[in-house]
This record gives sequence, C-alpha cells and structure tokens, in this order.
Amino acid sequence: MSVTAPRGFLAAGVSAGLRASHRPDLGLLVSEAPASAAGLFTTNAFPAAPVEVCRRRLLGGSARAVVANSGQANAGTGPGGVEDAEALTAAVAEALGGVGPTEVLPCSTGVIGPRIDVPAAVAGVRSAVAGLRSDGGPDFAEAIRTTDSVAKQTIVEAEGFAVGGCAKGAGMISPDLATLLVFLTTDAACSPTAATHALRRGAAPVWNALTVDNCPSTNDTVLLLANGASGFEPSPDALREAVGEATRDLAHQIVDDAEGATTTLVVQVDGATGEADARRVGKAVAGSMLVKTAVFGKDPNPGRILQAVGASGARFRPEAVDATLGGIPVIRAGAIPDAFDPAACVAAMKEREVVIRITLGPGPGSATAFGCDLGYEYVRINGEYTT
Amino acid sequence: MSVTAPRGFLAAGVSAGLRASHRPDLGLLVSEAPASAAGLFTTNAFPAAPVEVCRRRLLGGSARAVVANSGQANAGTGPGGVEDAEALTAAVAEALGGVGPTEVLPCSTGVIGPRIDVPAAVAGVRSAVAGLRSDGGPDFAEAIRTTDSVAKQTIVEAEGFAVGGCAKGAGMISPDLATLLVFLTTDAACSPTAATHALRRGAAPVWNALTVDNCPSTNDTVLLLANGASGFEPSPDALREAVGEATRDLAHQIVDDAEGATTTLVVQVDGATGEADARRVGKAVAGSMLVKTAVFGKDPNPGRILQAVGASGARFRPEAVDATLGGIPVIRAGAIPDAFDPAACVAAMKEREVVIRITLGPGPGSATAFGCDLGYEYVRINGEYTT
Repeated sequence: MSVTAPRGFLAAGVSAGLRASHRPDLGLLVSEAPASAAGLFTTNAFPAAPVEVCRRRLLGGSARAVVANSGQANAGTGPGGVEDAEALTAAVAEALGGVGPTEVLPCSTGVIGPRIDVPAAVAGVRSAVAGLRSDGGPDFAEAIRTTDSVAKQTIVEAEGFAVGGCAKGAGMISPDLATLLVFLTTDAACSPTAATHALRRGAAPVWNALTVDNCPSTNDTVLLLANGASGFEPSPDALREAVGEATRDLAHQIVDDAEGATTTLVVQVDGATGEADARRVGKAVAGSMLVKTAVFGKDPNPGRILQAVGASGARFRPEAVDATLGGIPVIRAGAIPDAFDPAACVAAMKEREVVIRITLGPGPGSATAFGCDLGYEYVRINGEYTT
Repeated sequence: MSVTAPRGFLAAGVSAGLRASHRPDLGLLVSEAPASAAGLFTTNAFPAAPVEVCRRRLLGGSARAVVANSGQANAGTGPGGVEDAEALTAAVAEALGGVGPTEVLPCSTGVIGPRIDVPAAVAGVRSAVAGLRSDGGPDFAEAIRTTDSVAKQTIVEAEGFAVGGCAKGAGMISPDLATLLVFLTTDAACSPTAATHALRRGAAPVWNALTVDNCPSTNDTVLLLANGASGFEPSPDALREAVGEATRDLAHQIVDDAEGATTTLVVQVDGATGEADARRVGKAVAGSMLVKTAVFGKDPNPGRILQAVGASGARFRPEAVDATLGGIPVIRAGAIPDAFDPAACVAAMKEREVVIRITLGPGPGSATAFGCDLGYEYVRINGEYTT
C-alpha cells in the first residue's frame, strides 16, 4: 500500500483528463493530522513551478497534503506556472476543508513547457478528495507514472513505526541534490529537523548516486511526511536508517525500469579518499555512454571502465586501482590484466543485473551507484517522446 | 596534403598488420629540420603510455618525427606499454638516421588494453621510412583512422606561412584539456613558447567545447610541429589565429563524422559571465542524451534544452535566458514561449546541421560547442566495438 502503509494517511488517484491517453494523471495524498515535512529538490537552475512552491511552503516544516499530476511538468512555464500550482493547491485545501492552502504541496511531471489545464485539474481534485482511502497508495503511485512501465512502491516496517514510499521516474534522471518524484510517509513522530536529517543522510546519498541519462531534471522532488500516528518517536538514526532502506528499494526499482533498459548496473566503489569521490567514480562508470552501450551489446571492453574511472575527476593513485565485472577481473593495478577473459566477461554481462566492483585504494570512502544499459529502445523512446 | 602542406615535412602511411583488417595502421610524420613542438594531452587519470612518453619528451620543446598507430590504444597496458612506445620510437630514430630517439613522439589509438605487436610495428616503421614523401600527408591521415569513416585534414594559408593538420576521432570524444589525435604542422618559424601559446589559446578552446559522447579518452593528444621552413616568423597572435582556424576546420569534420551521427549540433552561447561558463552551457546542451535523441528523432522538445542549460552549473539569471533552434524561438525569458512552433522546430531539425543559439544574459563570455545527435547507429557501433 506504499504511501498509505503507515497509519493516518489517505490517498487517491484519478483521471483528470490532463493526458491525451486518459490514464490516471492526478494523485492526492493526505495526512489525517498535520505532519512534519521535509523535502529535497533539484539543483537545476530552472526549477519547475511546483518545486518553487514546495520549497517555500516547507520552510514551515509542516504539511497536510500532496497533490501531484502527470502529463505536464509545469516547468519552463514562467510566473503563470506558479499561479497554476497555487490554484491547484488552493482547490485541494478548499475541497478537504479545515486545511490551509500553504499546507498542500504540489508536484508535477511530464513534458516541460505546456501549462496545466487548471479547470480540468480542479475537477480532478474534487473527485480525488471524494475517493480518498486508507488503501489508496497504489492508486496515487499509478497516477504519477509517465514513461515508467510500472509503479514503484515500498514499505519498511521498523520497530515502533513504518515508512511507506512511492516514486516515479524512468528518464531525465541523474539527481544532483535530490531526484524525480519520490513520496515517503511515516507514522513515526518526529520534528521537522529529524525529518530533514533522515532525508539528507538517508535518502540523498542514494539518489545522488543514481543515473539513467546524466540529465538532472527540472522537477526532481523527494518529500517525507511524518504524521506521528504510531505514537512512537524513533531516534534520528533509526528514522534515517528506515528512510534509507525505503529509498534503496525505490532506487533499485527506478533503474530496473529505466527507459529502454535491459540490464541494471550496480557499481560498488570502495577505498576512495571519501564518500564524494566514491560516488563520483560510481556515477561516472554507471553513466558512461560507452560502458552502457558495451553492456547492452555484451561487448567485453574493460578499457571503457578504465576510461570512465580515469575521467571521473576523483583523486586516486592509478596503479592502485582494481576492478571486477560480475567477479571477472577487468582492471588490475591500474591496467587491463593480461589474463582478462573476454568470454567470461560476456557471460557475466548477460545477467539482468551486472555488478562492477571498483577498489580505488586504501581509503575509507565507499558508495554504491545505480545505472542501466543504453540500447535501441532508449533512442526510440526519447526520439518520439512528445510527438 | 594536410600535414605535409607546409614546407619541409614528409609523411607516409603503411599497413603493418596491427589490425585484423589489414587496413593502413601505422603513420610516420617527419620534419626535415628540428621543429619547435608543443602538445595538449588528455586529463584522464589513466593516460595512455604514448601520452606519458610525449609529455616527457616535449619538455625540451623540440621534435623531429611523430609515429602513430591505430588498432591498439596502448592504454591500460602498464609499464610494458611505455616500453613498447619507446621501442617503436627508437626504431624510427634508427631507421631515419641522425635523429635521437627522444626527438620522436609516439601516438596510439584503438582498443584499450591489448599490447602493440612491436616486431610487426618495427617492420612497418622501416617500410614507412622508405616511403616518406612530401605529399604523404593523406597517407598518414588514413593510417590513423579507427571508426572514422573519413580522414580529417586541413590546410590554412596565412601570410608568410602555412598550417596543415589532420585528426582522427569519432567516439570516446569529449576532450577536457585536449583531445583525440590531432597533428598540426607549420613552416612558420617560432619558439616552443609561441607554439604552446598557439595550441593553448588557438586550439584548446575549440577542442574543449566538442563532445560526441561525454567520454574523455585516455589517448587525447594534439601536437603542433613548427619547422620554420618558410623562413617567416609570424606574431604569436597570427600563429594562434591560423592554428585556431585549422582547428575549427578539423573539429567540424570530427563531429560531422561522429559515430552513428546524422546531424551536427552547433551550440553558440553568448552573454555568459565568462568564456568558461559559456563553454559549460554549450557542452551541456551539445552533450545531453535527451537533446541528442530529440534531434535524432526530430522531436520538438524545447524543454530538454532548458533542462540542459539549467543543469550545466553555469551562473546566470534564469529569467534572462533566451534561445533559438534553427532560428525558431525555444526559450524566451527563461520559459518555453507560448508561441513555440513545433512544426517549424521539426523542419529546422531536419537540416544536416542544427544551430542552437543561447543568450544567457548581458555578460561578455561566448563559446561555440560542437556535438551530434544520438541514434540507433551509435548504439550498434558501440555495442559491437571489440567483438
């Protein structure tokens, strides 16, 4: 039940007619009590209008509801886009009753440029409010899909509380500070500060090490609502850990469903001088067009991993670098080993998930990056997106 | 005649059997007199063995010959790779006679990992020396091709001297400090300092704003040999200007022939706070997988240009940004214009060359970035490279 798994949350998803396909396109998530709220957002210099509105409203550290639409990203829409987002959240507040407009957080995903059809969306809001259910999480998750082939959902049961989550995203994904649309709920009691800690330390490191196409979106948003309905207040670290586990589950689902991907890439980097350098190397390898096409074509080309590590900008001694792909040595002491076995490498790349392990040296920094291969289907999907 | 167009240069290209296809794979370029020499090299942390050797030898500021092979990049080859490069250049010095081994500069391009077959290459060197000709430039250019479908060559006639050049490169191209293999010759008289100035100020800004796949190679090398055979010493700026013109010509040929590309992208950025920011924006747009696939699919999706500009990391006021594609407005005051014309945008993208002009604000910084689209053929070429 994803975002409605923790106690005290209701959700719904409806077709408001914002998309030509008449698929569900408007989701509503409501906390029965005011929730501590925190968010992570895109660092793109052109943040979408709902990102600007969310940022402002989260200064208060509290929220009651989230309204999210698919079809239009409401980005690149200028001041009118902000007015649209405000109109939509005002409609939610009015239809719910007893909720202020600034307690409602807006999110959008879809094509950049076009405005949202506000009258249609407002009508959708009314039918969503009428359809709110304590098991409505899957409907909410369904309504925010765009090129996603499946909805991504997670539930983490921790001691005394639960964390639920859902996410959307299959392309324009290479989060910088945060990413895509991710909604996390918890019935833990916590302060806005603890919620922010859980996102920054539990969720951000995971999202910032994930890439589908190296393109940080204008709309990346991660929200956490904590309504305290469990009556239990976990330690900040227990909350961070549960949020981190929910996030890893969603991140894995995102790359498994990346646009046109047939293979998931997991790049485990250890021995870096710090976590940032480890992430830099992991993301460089997972995001390399040459590594991605080689994995797609099952082409045993370890030099491309060497190239990507070397171009990452991380600090390391080249002659200390070792790497394996599916357990097959591909770099040994900074060079391609004489005994490199192309046939074994091809076999390893035929798995649905390919794990590349890189040791940079003796340092303490580690990170796990997620990515995917690059095949014909990615080109087809992204050559035909708006048309 | 490319590198042999300036007076006093000889060149040859032969098949040494380094490649399975028996195509020409070994090129030799010789200056009749000692030449002032300067180079630009990859910033990849795993520089190829010949890059290390070139860097060391150029400290003297002088060179007599260049030997270049295709088939093996001689990168990721460890200390043995350096020995191979030194053996090859020693063979050139011996076969030429009267030339020291450290006056010969080695370059390699091809698959990363495998060692060069040195005995075969040495035999090739002997036949190349026997075949040196004053019109051998095209043979040299031919011998260094890998996935290039054509050789890239240029001649610039300046007042009192000439600049010749050739280049190879179609993939793993996103130069950081320098790029690919580029050989520039001139019969101008100049000091090594003037040659370095001409490369750093005339060539580097062009190469650093070019990308095929955002993957800076281990082997990127740009060399300039100035042998003074014209008897004319141009001003440093005249030399820089001629080198810059030759470089722009070669860069354009490189992106026109990029792996699998059907469209050349030229991104002109003006009004940045400085040249570095202008280049950052240009390269972000030219290198965006979403812009590249949209151009390939003729999909009118201006939001992807907005996204790429916003994610570039350059400093600007978002509401000051304007952009056109093929003359069609795609961003106006930081937003997608209401009057955006998809049909006109589609028509503009059907040209062989698509020009995107971006104005970031009132600043003095300008740059021109070169790139290409991303289609099925890129995936095919790079999924099947070594196999």
